[in-house]
Order: sequence, then structure tokens, then C-alpha cells
Amino acid sequence: MTQRIAVIGAGPSGLAVLRAFESARKAGAEVPEMVCYEKQSNWGGLWNYTWRTGLDEYGEPVHGSMYRYLWSNGPKECLEFADYSFEEHFGRPIPSFPPRAVLHDYIAGRVDKSGVRQYCKFSHAVRDVTWNAETSKFTVVVNDLAAKSRISEEFDYVFVANGHFSTPNVPTFEGIEKFLGRVLHAHDFRCADEFAGKHVLLIGSSYSAEDIATQCHKYGAKRITFSYRTRPMGFDWPDSFSERPLLTKVVGKTCHFQDGTTAEDVDAIIFCTGYLNHYPFLPDELRLETRTSLYPPNLYKGVFWEKNPKLIYIGAQDQFYTFNMFDAQAWYARDVVLGRITLPESYDAMHADSEAWVARLNALPDVEAMIDFQTDYVRELLAETDYPRLDVDMCADLFKQWEHAKTEGILTYRDRSYPSTITGTVAPVHHTTWMKAMDDSLEAFLNQPASQAAE
Amino acid sequence: MTQRIAVIGAGPSGLAVLRAFESARKAGAEVPEMVCYEKQSNWGGLWNYTWRTGLDEYGEPVHGSMYRYLWSNGPKECLEFADYSFEEHFGRPIPSFPPRAVLHDYIAGRVDKSGVRQYCKFSHAVRDVTWNAETSKFTVVVNDLAAKSRISEEFDYVFVANGHFSTPNVPTFEGIEKFLGRVLHAHDFRCADEFAGKHVLLIGSSYSAEDIATQCHKYGAKRITFSYRTRPMGFDWPDSFSERPLLTKVVGKTCHFQDGTTAEDVDAIIFCTGYLNHYPFLPDELRLETRTSLYPPNLYKGVFWEKNPKLIYIGAQDQFYTFNMFDAQAWYARDVVLGRITLPESYDAMHADSEAWVARLNALPDVEAMIDFQTDYVRELLAETDYPRLDVDMCADLFKQWEHAKTEGILTYRDRSYPSTITGTVAPVHHTTWMKAMDDSLEAFLNQPASQAAE
Ligand SMILES: Cc1cc2nc3c(=O)[nH]c(=O)nc-3n(C[C@H](O)[C@H](O)[C@H](O)COP(=O)(O)OP(=O)(O)OC[C@H]3O[C@@H](n4cnc5c(N)ncnc54)[C@H](O)[C@@H]3O)c2cc1C
Ligand SMILES: Cc1cc2nc3c(=O)[nH]c(=O)nc-3n(C[C@H](O)[C@H](O)[C@H](O)COP(=O)(O)OP(=O)(O)OC[C@H]3O[C@@H](n4cnc5c(N)ncnc54)[C@H](O)[C@@H]3O)c2cc1C
Ligand SMILES: NC(=O)c1ccc[n+]([C@@H]2O[C@H](COP(=O)([O-])OP(=O)(O)OC[C@H]3O[C@@H](n4cnc5c(N)ncnc54)[C@H](OP(=O)(O)O)[C@@H]3O)[C@@H](O)[C@H]2O)c1
Ligand SMILES: NC(=O)c1ccc[n+]([C@@H]2O[C@H](COP(=O)([O-])OP(=O)(O)OC[C@H]3O[C@@H](n4cnc5c(N)ncnc54)[C@H](OP(=O)(O)O)[C@@H]3O)[C@@H](O)[C@H]2O)c1
Repeated sequence: MTQRIAVIGAGPSGLAVLRAFESARKAGAEVPEMVCYEKQSNWGGLWNYTWRTGLDEYGEPVHGSMYRYLWSNGPKECLEFADYSFEEHFGRPIPSFPPRAVLHDYIAGRVDKSGVRQYCKFSHAVRDVTWNAETSKFTVVVNDLAAKSRISEEFDYVFVANGHFSTPNVPTFEGIEKFLGRVLHAHDFRCADEFAGKHVLLIGSSYSAEDIATQCHKYGAKRITFSYRTRPMGFDWPDSFSERPLLTKVVGKTCHFQDGTTAEDVDAIIFCTGYLNHYPFLPDELRLETRTSLYPPNLYKGVFWEKNPKLIYIGAQDQFYTFNMFDAQAWYARDVVLGRITLPESYDAMHADSEAWVARLNALPDVEAMIDFQTDYVRELLAETDYPRLDVDMCADLFKQWEHAKTEGILTYRDRSYPSTITGTVAPVHHTTWMKAMDDSLEAFLNQPASQAAE
Repeated sequence: MTQRIAVIGAGPSGLAVLRAFESARKAGAEVPEMVCYEKQSNWGGLWNYTWRTGLDEYGEPVHGSMYRYLWSNGPKECLEFADYSFEEHFGRPIPSFPPRAVLHDYIAGRVDKSGVRQYCKFSHAVRDVTWNAETSKFTVVVNDLAAKSRISEEFDYVFVANGHFSTPNVPTFEGIEKFLGRVLHAHDFRCADEFAGKHVLLIGSSYSAEDIATQCHKYGAKRITFSYRTRPMGFDWPDSFSERPLLTKVVGKTCHFQDGTTAEDVDAIIFCTGYLNHYPFLPDELRLETRTSLYPPNLYKGVFWEKNPKLIYIGAQDQFYTFNMFDAQAWYARDVVLGRITLPESYDAMHADSEAWVARLNALPDVEAMIDFQTDYVRELLAETDYPRLDVDMCADLFKQWEHAKTEGILTYRDRSYPSTITGTVAPVHHTTWMKAMDDSLEAFLNQPASQAAE
């Protein structure tokens, strides 16, 4: 009987799985039957922008954490698919830091072309997954949201690709329930314009804090205060910015910090406190429990659930690498499913391998070492499959250049250009510097503005 | 073997069930074992205020739809428990329109006193309910949120009391995804202060629209525009208010309406478009599908799921009556479980009864007729049980007086006083008129302010 695989989520990770099997099929292999359940009405995962926040039209948690003016925060050259370059998709080279709509177009372009849309069931939310040891099959229970009905199907493998930057981590602080302003998590941030003229406090010191603050500044926020738990970001911020230690309490519109200082007249508090790896559809014995990590525990090769390796997590890691890492994982997992790669026989052997990675991670001294760590991980996966050649050393080098560029100018790093690791072409300089590029549409990005074209 | 009942939710409806059985037990009856699963960390349902919006600390949808300055919008005399008066709880009469914290205190007071907290499992979210025809039992799957574990138990009866004013109904409008301001649903509205100085557009023409707009006005909003689908509310609004027909599109910060008029410089759009009866934990064959209605279909006596009357919905109706109607339902359902009341033998007999109510509802001419309709419904339930005497005719009369008072002054109706249907005492006038009462705390409400006390 034909094997069946379920893929939960049609974001970049789930799509990588569909694409991996489809490319084997086109090369003549016999591949399992695939069903990809996606709770949104379209694919693209986080890159599929929504104006909604909280719950969606079906009462499901809104997946999207992306906002109106989100631009790639890493160079696109670091995430480029080895089997589908930006040049192939757009017919010409484009600048290194595209806005969201451009990246969505790119992701969708590859999968459109490979014809995998037929495997996707949109507006289908997975509710429950159980393993039946007698039949060696998973039962997957799914809500068909539009039909308002519940279906249940059996599968030999389940790929968990629901993303882990969607369910907000929201701690609490003394007095927050009486704050006389707006409180939200980065997950619900949509439109920087709303904060023009405001004093915004951002809690957290990672990518969301850094980027939402600079967005707000770009669109007219009056003042930015950051509050960090572990250490300040320390960028060369504009004068209207300041970094403070952790918030201790809120009184009216005044925020108090651990060092005894205060910020007055705060209009909004934005929690940029990260996300939870959240798998509400998985029972205890199948569920990954981890904080955001470059190597979550109990996953052999970062993907196989060691206690039952027919359950496969794609993209569960914290991410320097994104799209091409998901590809590396998907190709590897595919080859295990197809019998081209054999897993270690015992749980112990798999677990010893992943524990070694976790131990190495825990000893890393700095960001450059973290980049090298994830580079080594991706390299190891790639070595075993027919995924087209990806120069991960060059990627690692670009990541490090990018980190330096951010230190040199947090408002200007997106104006830089990097070479493609796939085609070798150096990206053109964008027609407008990021701080002046107020329109984030695909059209505005790809077309020279009339005024400038005429210059 | 002892029978077991599960109650989903510890809001006023679920608590009514616990209280109903407990009062039978104290009177000497043998009652089933009870377990009440509540996903929040405390009881009180919507009355349990939270500053959170979207998803909670466990990644669950935030239940709360109530806001900082929420005051009862109906006279408390219409919702008073027949077995626990306001005077008994507070030790003296209090004004007719209390703020949220005061009502929460009242709800909690009754159940604290009757000792039913032992039956509640807090931070437990029900995930799944299935019926096993062979064993005639329900299996209820629950996530213990704090322990991060999933449990599964068997029950003879399941009471569904999860509330239906929590999952927002959010339609879409052309251009909303590009609106250059804030978009939210009433469910996520918390603090009127945030809208001081703003032009707020509210979509909808029912209780949330009316109350959130008057709240925003009270705390300094500059301008209020309503957009209705069916008909305007037509109250005697302040000058800064206007009512328009349905929104057709949004362009920048300009909103266009069906009559061709526009509202300019809108800062925020608040969807006051109601809620969904939402039972994500129920399979198709057990799930009530209904829009908000004074008599949802397929529920015998408004509570028993006709296709399987061991599944019992409490509080699924649209509500003039609230707390005491939930009591009437809970006492009736309890007596069916205890064998004191016998259900009709056939599905057809039950269904014919509920269809007659639905048909009557569909023919009602106006609001007064709707009040009478729900009064008759409550009366019918009360007639069969030992719930203490409740004068529903007096309640109906108070509801009608209240509707008239709103027409006479939408900003002043909360300054009126009504007599208790339980004790007969007329409520005292509050120390401060509602428009001037800026502090909604229990302390501020119950204590004469020092300045006034001295007068
Ligand atoms: C604000 C933000 C900005 C980012 N910016 C960048 C960037 O600039 N560059 C970059 O490379 N990466 C960025 N990322 C990282 C991002 O995680 C990856 O780019 C990528 O989207 C991850 O893909 P994924 O498929 O693993 O997860 P997602 O993109 O999150 O997709 C998961 C999919 O699963 C679906 N799903 C979830 N639950 C269910 C269910 N129960 N049933 C069915 N379907 C379900 C979701 O609807 C979604 O479509 C950003 C992340 C965030 C939060
Ligand atoms: C904004 C607003 C204002 C209101 N104001 C008034 C008023 O002034 N006067 C009045 O009489 N009525 C008012 N109401 C009506 C209100 O519906 C009732 O007063 C009452 O709260 C309904 O009680 P309930 O128990 O049916 O539902 P809820 O109060 O909603 O309680 C349901 C409970 O179920 C829990 N729950 C939900 N899902 C799960 C799950 N899967 N597992 C476990 N637990 C779960 C929830 O956490 C919650 O505690 C208002 C409603 C709203 C939305
Ligand atoms: N394209 C873009 O421009 C863009 C924009 C935003 C985000 N992103 C992406 O989104 C993903 C998530 O980034 P993120 O910044 O949201 O999450 P993150 O990288 O996981 O960072 C979480 C932050 O929250 C802090 N934090 C956690 N719990 C806290 C608590 N209880 N109190 C105070 N602080 C707390 C952490 O502080 P500690 O350091 O003390 O742990 C850390 O600074 C990343 O992949 C990122 O690249 C991209
Ligand atoms: N204590 C308080 O002060 C207070 C405050 C707020 C709410 N509440 C309570 O909360 C409960 C819910 O009230 P609610 O007002 O949120 O809900 P509601 O009474 O169900 O009203 C929903 C409103 O949304 C409109 N609507 C629905 N879909 C729409 C669409 N697609 N486009 C435009 N309009 C649409 C409806 O218009 P139509 O008329 O055209 O159908 C109606 O006006 C009630 O029990 C109420 O008493 C109490």
C-alpha cells in the first residue's frame, strides 16, 4: 500500500517538504501520497501578511507576526534556495534586503512552478495527532474551517512545520494591568504609523525589539525606550533612543527599571519578548518542549523525534539560516522516508548525537560561533542528499559581514549589497535608502520611482 | 457506580451548575461527582478581568472581552440571584449599576460561600470531547496548562458553559489591510484612555458599539463615528457623535460609507460586530452551530442537545437575563440528571418543542417582545424546580423601564435606581454620576469619596 505523509503547515518549512518529495518524484522515484494541512487560506506562512490580530475569521489564533513595513533583516543571499535563485524568479538581480511582499512572491514562485499546490488543503487546522502502535500509523484530526467539519485521516509520517514564531511569550510586570496606555506583543504589531508622535517602550533586546523600534522611529515615533533582561543591544542608536535594564513596575504612565531610573509618559508598551514553540495538537509523548534554541533537544539531526522518528519537525530551530536550512532538513528527511538514508537503530544512538550538538551549543562564546554552529549543522545535512550545491561557508561569511554592518549602522545596514552564493551576481544597490523607502510594496521595490528614474 | 459530570468553564454559567448540584447535596440528595475545567487561573468567566489580549501566557486564546472601565449595562436587579441577594453579599443595599469588579465580587461570593471551589481545576483547557455509544460515556481531553500535560477522563454528562461572547466575529472591508491606523475588535478593547483625542470609528450598532463609544467619549475621545449594517441606534448622542450606514471601503485614513458620505482622519476602527458561538473542542455531531440568538436551535429547553441530551449547554442564548437565567437552566438540568424531571422520550418530541420557540422568536416585532420572550422561557424553567422564587414579571418590567431610560439619556441611564426583586429594597443613588465616576474600582464604588462624604 502507498505510504502517506501529512505535513502540518504550508510555510517555508512545510513547502520545503512538498518540494523535496516532488523533485524526487519528477526524477522518477516513487514517493508517498502527501497531504499538507494549512490553517490559513494561502501558503507562505509568516510571509502571508494579515491585518488581523488575535483570532481570525474562524476563531483560530492568527498565525501572522509580520507587520506592514517588514523588510528582510538578513541579506536575502543567506536564505536563497539552491534550486531556485532570486535571479531565476525575478528575471534579473534585485537588492539584498527586500520587503515582505517580495520574499512572499519568491517563496510562492518556486512552489507554484513545481506544481505542489494540489497537495495543500487550505483553511484546514490540525487539532490532534495520535500514534497507534498497533497499526504503526498516526491519526490526524483536522478542522475544515470553511466547511465547519472535522475530518480524521491516517498517515505513516507526520511532518510538523507549524512555525515557532507565532505564539507570543508574554511575561507579566507589576502594575501592567493598570497601565494607562496600550499594551501589545510584537506578534500583534502591524502598522508603525500608529505610533507617530508617541513614546514607545519595548521590552526585549533581540530582533523584534530592534526592528520594531527602528520602524517606529522611521514612521515618526517621538521617543523609544528599550528594556533588556540580559544585556543592552548597544547599537549606535538615534538620540531619541535609550536602553534600560528590566522593567520592575508600571505606575500610571511611568515605567520603573531595575537601576532605579524611570521613563515618563509612556504611550505604549510593546513586548518583544519572543515566542513559544507551541504544539497544542500534539500529545505529551510526541511533543517537543523547548525554549527558542539553535538546537532543541530530543531531535536527531534537528528533525527526527527520537522517541518516534516517524514524527519529523522541520524548522523548529532558532534561525540564522531559514529557507535553505528548511530545504536541507526536508531533503534529508525525505531521503530517510524513501529509504536512501538509514537512521541509527537505537534511541540511544540518536539521542547521544543530538546531545553532543546541544552540549556544543551551550558552550558557544559569541554570535560568530553561533553562526558557525548552524553552518556546520546545515552542512552536515546537505552532505547526504542531492540538494543542489550550497556554499555554506560563503553564507557564514555573509552572516558575519551583516552582523558587522549592523554594528556600523543600525539604520543603514539594509542599504548594503551582497553577492549571491548561487549565481555569484552582486546585488544592485536599491533605488532608495531604507530610511527613505516608505512604501514597502513589491511594485515600489522592483520599479525605479518615476522621479528618480527621470533624474 | 457514582455518576460523573464535567463542567466546561467556571464563568457564571458553569458556577450555576456547581451551585445547583451542591445545594441539592446539602439538602441530602445523592449527587454525581463533579469536575469543572476552567482555562483561566480563576473563576468568574468574562468578569475575571485581564489586561492581556490575543493569546495568554500559555498560548491559549484570551477569554476576556471586558475592559478597564466596564460597568453593568443593565440594572443589577435584573440579574440578581434568587438565593443570594446583593444585600446579603455586601451587607447593605448598593446602587443599580455596579462596575465589573463589584459584580465579580458578588458572583465569587456566592460560590465561595457554598464551598464549590474544590470541584474546579483551574488552568485546565478542554481540548476534545467525544461520545462513546458503547459505554454511554463521554471522554474529555484536557490540557493541564501549568503542568504542560494532557489528561483524559470519562464522564456521564458534559455541561458546556464556555461562554459565547469571547471569540470575536470579524468581517472584512475593502482596504482595511492598508488602513493607516489601529484596527481592533471590541474583544481586544481594554483602556478607553488610549483613545483620548482620537477619532474612533465603531462598526456595529449593539451593546458593545454603544458602550465602547460612550466610554471613549467619557475618557476624552475627540470624535465618534458609528457604522451600522441594519439600522442606527438612534440615541440622543453628544454632538461629537454621528451614525452612518455600512462601511464600504477604507482609503488611507478615510472611511467611505454606503450612503456616499465619508469620515476623514479616522485614528482607530473598532469592530463591535459581535461574537461567535465557538466550540472548537466539540466534534460535528455534538456541536451547536448558531449565530447569536435568544433561542439557538436543536436545544430542548434551551439546554439539552437533542441528539444526545447528556450534553447540556448552559448560557448559550443571547442575553437579556444572565446570572439568574443560568441558574434556572442549571437547576432544571440538575433535576433531569437527578431523575426528578423526565425528558421526552423521543428526539422528535424535544425538537418540536424547541422549534416552536424558534418560530415564535422569528416572529417577534420589537425589543419589548424579546424581553417577554426570554421572560417566558425563564419562567417555564423555574416552574419545575426548587430554585427560590424569582419574580420574572418584575424583571421584565425593569428591563422595559431600563430600555426607556436609555432612550431618554444614553449617558445618564446608569444614574437611575431600581428595586430588588428579591428584597424589595430600592437601590440607593450612587455617590457620583456615571459620567463623572472615572475610577471603576470596587473601593471607589462602595465608599463615599472623602470630599463628598464631608459635604
Ligand atoms: C516578525 C518576523 C520577521 C521575520 N523576518 C525574517 C527575515 O527577514 N528573514 C528570514 O529569513 N526569516 C525571517 N523570519 C523567520 C521566519 O520564521 C522564517 O522566515 C519562516 O517563515 C519560517 O517558516 P516555517 O514554515 O517554519 O514557519 P511559518 O512561516 O510560521 O509557517 C508555519 C505555517 O503553519 C501553519 N500552521 C500553524 N499551526 C497550524 C495547524 N494547527 N494546522 C495547520 N496549519 C498550521 C501556519 O498557518 C503557517 O502558515 C521572521 C520571523 C518573524 C516572526
Ligand atoms: C463586554 C461584555 C460585557 C458584558 N456586560 C454584562 C453586564 O453588564 N451584565 C450582564 O448581566 N451580562 C453582561 N455580559 C454578558 C456575559 O455573557 C454574562 O454576564 C456572563 O459572563 C456569561 O457567563 P458564562 O459563564 O456563560 O460565560 P463566560 O463568562 O464567558 O465564562 C465562560 C468560561 O469558560 C471558560 N472556558 C472557555 N473555553 C474553555 C475551555 N476550552 N476549557 C475550559 N474552560 C473554558 C472561560 O475561561 C470562562 O471562564 C457582558 C458580556 C460582554 C462580552
Ligand atoms: N525581518 C525582520 O526585520 C524581523 C523583525 C523582527 C523579528 N524577526 C525575526 O523574528 C524572530 C524572533 O525574534 P524576536 O526578537 O521576536 O525573539 P527572540 O530572538 O527569541 O528574542 C526574545 C527576546 O525577549 C527577551 N525576553 C524573553 N523573555 C523575557 C522576559 N521574561 N523579560 C524580559 N525579556 C524577555 C529575550 O531576552 P534575553 O536576551 O534576556 O533572553 C530576548 O531579548 C527571529 O527569527 C527574527 O529574525 C525579523
Ligand atoms: N456591560 C456593558 O456595558 C456591555 C458592553 C458591551 C457589551 N456587553 C454585552 O456583550 C454582549 C455582546 O454584545 P455585542 O454588541 O458585542 O454583540 P451583539 O449584540 O451580538 O451585536 C453585534 C453587532 O454587530 C453587527 N454586525 C455583525 N456582523 C456584522 C457585519 N458583517 N457588518 C457590520 N455589522 C455587523 C450587528 O449588526 P446587525 O444589527 O446588522 O445584525 C450588531 O449590531 C451582550 O450581551 C452585551 O450586553 C455589555
